[in-house]
Amino acid sequence: MPDPSLLEVFPTPVDSPFVIEHINEEFTSLCPKTGHPDFGRIILHYSPAKLCVELKSLKLYCQSFRNEGIFYEAVTNRIRDDLAKAMAPRWLQVITEWKGRGGIHSRIIAISGTVPPEWARG
Amino acid sequence: MPDPSLLEVFPTPVDSPFVIEHINEEFTSLCPKTGHPDFGRIILHYSPAKLCVELKSLKLYCQSFRNEGIFYEAVTNRIRDDLAKAMAPRWLQVITEWKGRGGIHSRIIAISGTVPPEWARG
Amino acid sequence: MPDPSLLEVFPTPVDSPFVIEHINEEFTSLCPKTGHPDFGRIILHYSPAKLCVELKSLKLYCQSFRNEGIFYEAVTNRIRDDLAKAMAPRWLQVITEWKGRGGIHSRIIAISGTVPPEWARG
Amino acid sequence: MPDPSLLEVFPTPVDSPFVIEHINEEFTSLCPKTGHPDFGRIILHYSPAKLCVELKSLKLYCQSFRNEGIFYEAVTNRIRDDLAKAMAPRWLQVITEWKGRGGIHSRIIAISGTVPPEWARG
Amino acid sequence: MPDPSLLEVFPTPVDSPFVIEHINEEFTSLCPKTGHPDFGRIILHYSPAKLCVELKSLKLYCQSFRNEGIFYEAVTNRIRDDLAKAMAPRWLQVITEWKGRGGIHSRIIAISGTVPPEWARG
Amino acid sequence: MPDPSLLEVFPTPVDSPFVIEHINEEFTSLCPKTGHPDFGRIILHYSPAKLCVELKSLKLYCQSFRNEGIFYEAVTNRIRDDLAKAMAPRWLQVITEWKGRGGIHSRIIAISGTVPPEWARG
Amino acid sequence: MPDPSLLEVFPTPVDSPFVIEHINEEFTSLCPKTGHPDFGRIILHYSPAKLCVELKSLKLYCQSFRNEGIFYEAVTNRIRDDLAKAMAPRWLQVITEWKGRGGIHSRIIAISGTVPPEWARG
Amino acid sequence: MPDPSLLEVFPTPVDSPFVIEHINEEFTSLCPKTGHPDFGRIILHYSPAKLCVELKSLKLYCQSFRNEGIFYEAVTNRIRDDLAKAMAPRWLQVITEWKGRGGIHSRIIAISGTVPPEWARG
Amino acid sequence: MPDPSLLEVFPTPVDSPFVIEHINEEFTSLCPKTGHPDFGRIILHYSPAKLCVELKSLKLYCQSFRNEGIFYEAVTNRIRDDLAKAMAPRWLQVITEWKGRGGIHSRIIAISGTVPPEWARG
Amino acid sequence: MPDPSLLEVFPTPVDSPFVIEHINEEFTSLCPKTGHPDFGRIILHYSPAKLCVELKSLKLYCQSFRNEGIFYEAVTNRIRDDLAKAMAPRWLQVITEWKGRGGIHSRIIAISGTVPPEWARG
Repeated sequence: MPDPSLLEVFPTPVDSPFVIEHINEEFTSLCPKTGHPDFGRIILHYSPAKLCVELKSLKLYCQSFRNEGIFYEAVTNRIRDDLAKAMAPRWLQVITEWKGRGGIHSRIIAISGTVPPEWARG
Repeated sequence: MPDPSLLEVFPTPVDSPFVIEHINEEFTSLCPKTGHPDFGRIILHYSPAKLCVELKSLKLYCQSFRNEGIFYEAVTNRIRDDLAKAMAPRWLQVITEWKGRGGIHSRIIAISGTVPPEWARG
Repeated sequence: MPDPSLLEVFPTPVDSPFVIEHINEEFTSLCPKTGHPDFGRIILHYSPAKLCVELKSLKLYCQSFRNEGIFYEAVTNRIRDDLAKAMAPRWLQVITEWKGRGGIHSRIIAISGTVPPEWARG
Repeated sequence: MPDPSLLEVFPTPVDSPFVIEHINEEFTSLCPKTGHPDFGRIILHYSPAKLCVELKSLKLYCQSFRNEGIFYEAVTNRIRDDLAKAMAPRWLQVITEWKGRGGIHSRIIAISGTVPPEWARG
Repeated sequence: MPDPSLLEVFPTPVDSPFVIEHINEEFTSLCPKTGHPDFGRIILHYSPAKLCVELKSLKLYCQSFRNEGIFYEAVTNRIRDDLAKAMAPRWLQVITEWKGRGGIHSRIIAISGTVPPEWARG
Repeated sequence: MPDPSLLEVFPTPVDSPFVIEHINEEFTSLCPKTGHPDFGRIILHYSPAKLCVELKSLKLYCQSFRNEGIFYEAVTNRIRDDLAKAMAPRWLQVITEWKGRGGIHSRIIAISGTVPPEWARG
Repeated sequence: MPDPSLLEVFPTPVDSPFVIEHINEEFTSLCPKTGHPDFGRIILHYSPAKLCVELKSLKLYCQSFRNEGIFYEAVTNRIRDDLAKAMAPRWLQVITEWKGRGGIHSRIIAISGTVPPEWARG
Repeated sequence: MPDPSLLEVFPTPVDSPFVIEHINEEFTSLCPKTGHPDFGRIILHYSPAKLCVELKSLKLYCQSFRNEGIFYEAVTNRIRDDLAKAMAPRWLQVITEWKGRGGIHSRIIAISGTVPPEWARG
Repeated sequence: MPDPSLLEVFPTPVDSPFVIEHINEEFTSLCPKTGHPDFGRIILHYSPAKLCVELKSLKLYCQSFRNEGIFYEAVTNRIRDDLAKAMAPRWLQVITEWKGRGGIHSRIIAISGTVPPEWARG
Repeated sequence: MPDPSLLEVFPTPVDSPFVIEHINEEFTSLCPKTGHPDFGRIILHYSPAKLCVELKSLKLYCQSFRNEGIFYEAVTNRIRDDLAKAMAPRWLQVITEWKGRGGIHSRIIAISGTVPPEWARG
């Protein structure tokens, strides 16, 4: 099941603000209705305050959804909340993109904080 | 014929605002003039207030246009109105994209509500 | 239902052999199990003997599958047989490409006659 | 020669504002200097006030430039003016894109009215 | 664990030979060394003799690898063997494509029987 | 109307065989049934014997179809015949590719002579 | 050497503002340090006041850099200055894009005047 | 090890502001944890005040990271700081894009100064 | 320096022949003339006899070229020889693709043994 | 003018046959009729006997066409002849690809020797 205790953080290397993007192309969870697997990718954008998320711990945290029955909307908001709690970032955006079911592709976007100027054009 | 009663909704999992995109690649209706089939895709963006549209019900609702004679502009505004009524979202954007007729491709965009900041850069 | 009587033919403009490709991007039929619509495209390659299929009649013939419940494999072989009967071509290849169901995309290839040298590299 | 009398209009299906895009991939006129054909595409965006342009009439209107000797800039502004007169839209944008001449590709953009919020992100 | 009993077959609709392609974009298993998930896609080409594999059963069979620790090479040959046994096809080709590990992408190809002429150019 | 007298030739610069490809992206003729313009591109491959076609003359020859009502199949074979007569090449392949009509794209391939080894992999 | 006297202008066909884009895919000059050729493309956007640049004269002007030893930054600003002088446009943007040297691709952007609303979304 | 003394600068050719982009497709450093090589690309955007960075010196500076063990975030901020010091630009944006590790791709964005209007749409 | 002792092998899981492709996107060595780094990718195709190369050991072997001054042609043939010795495969093809130097991209192909039928169309 | 004396060769590193591809993206010569520059790319495939062409010398040789008035066909055969003389390769294929003139793109293919099995599938 989703396990936020897997998330590890480290101090940002500089005080000046910047933006980090991590894209996990390999995400899978289960549909809570049918039990069939869902496949998608997780796009994470954030501007750290004092902490960054460690990359391998992020991977393991994402893997902890593998056998969880959970809706698209809940996955997205859960990751947003877990990361916001772990890092207390200046800004955080979580985008989940899902392969089609019955001919429909979906994408969910959740944010925390306000878009920083570094992100205005990247 | 288009049947909004097929649309089912469920409560949003969180109170904080977020944005949902559903893209239905498999839409077909009939040209009301010639009776020939039109093929297109339906792109739905919305920010839920208290309700989200259930994915399978959205698919069935879209299928209910299959043998309806209806213009591009009317399809787009009809879907906008039906979804706005079913979900009462904070913001809703419906885009329909149509394969060419006589060498002309068309796209129609209708909205309801104002663009939320979550959508500013996704 | 599929109606081969819609197919019209005309004499080839020259005696020397050549190859014709028609790609219908807008094909839909119904799944005979679930009743849900299937979407695909039909790719037709042939080398005429004495007759060519008329383009608009080909379109109407394809549209006649719209509300037929029929499997992918049967659509492909049905079109191959109907066209082979209508044109008696030197060579005919029918490829159907289907949008995904449950994450699986499919393609079916049926031929009649032997590949002509004109097709060796086109 | 360009014939705006070919343009037909119909009333918008709803009062709420929306945006329509038509892309004509098959446009040709003649270079007024050399007489050689020019090939391009016409991209039309507009937000209707009370009238929409009918699709087939738009196609015939575009075809009426086929044997006209006319510069890129004049084509673009001519179409903008003819459509603005026929529809009196809230907003209209005409973009013409031209295949290269002597290694130079060109694109011309003309507008009428102000960009509507529906167009902000589509 | 991989369960070939999930595979269901049905008789081919015609006696004349043809070729079928199924591409499963959503495959995951586990690395037997590290326990980390592997993600890939399974491409199946075959020419049926008397039996075809049913699409939904193929999907469930592929899902049965989800929590199995198994190498790329073994997945490929296992699927080839299970399908060859279930369908006894004239020809069968199984291709597995795997997302990168440590910057290396892999693809494995296994066949059974000889390439049919229908497949020569499709 | 199509005017083969526009075609000019020049002697090949070397005796050893080679292959030439010319792709004309800007071809238009008229549908003999409806009078509507058809748009396409002409792909020419040939291996010269003693003569090559001059590029500008080829362009003017293609332009001479502009206001001719002529079917796809006839355009293709006409160009093949006119070029074969003008150049007497070792090998000639004419491919015409046509934008969609009613959702169907077409391509016609006509050859003269046998494929030379230079073309085997290019 | 770069010769702005090659630039010819003509009056804009309309008084209402519009935007013109010309992309020259075929630009070459010489590196002033090594003498080796540089290859790039020139993208020109402008909103005319009273004058437009004539297309063939623009091509000849660009060709006049062919054997000039000149840095990327100087090419860009030189073209901006020459065109601003010749046309006195409301707005002018010159972008030069250069093929890689030692694995580094470069792009230079210079403007004159302020971005017009016509350019806001094109 | 990263050596900012390799960076050479030269005076801007004009006083009017403009924007320069350099993309180094060939960057490699080492992971400070595992010692395995990291591969990425460095995208540099800046608006010079009085100085530009010389291209070959930029390449050599980037090569000086080849055998350095350094995190993604530190590479990005280090390059930003070294270039800001060497050029004192009006604006500077450094983007690093990294090939995936364990299925996760990363991108880091750091800036110095405020986005210039020249960059608003390029 | 290139170290073939890093290569580890394991027995093929089945006796029936199959084909394996590994693509290493992250390869770098040094130019023996200038000392500048070369960047490329290594594409490996083989049909095992009794042994397969272990994936992580292949990665480490490729990394051992990192600080070696060696020509493109020598890298390719060296890898072919080292792998052929380590695995004694039925067939082996090594392709190296190199980013451009001075505007020239290169690709080198070396094989050992004869192309197996499994590879005929994959 | 084209100067084959610029071509330098070096001995092949191994006796076993292999294939080399060099693609020069940056080629320019002049049209002998109009004097306008032609832009293209040169693709070279060869299987060395005892000698390989040195990469920088190949670049300089290609640059020697810069101000030469010469037809496409002559460029192609000239390069084939100069390289065949310099290297005496087992097999050599020269492909030139040219940007469009008057809407027509061209490609010329010349070979020397017979296609080696290494090239059959690469």
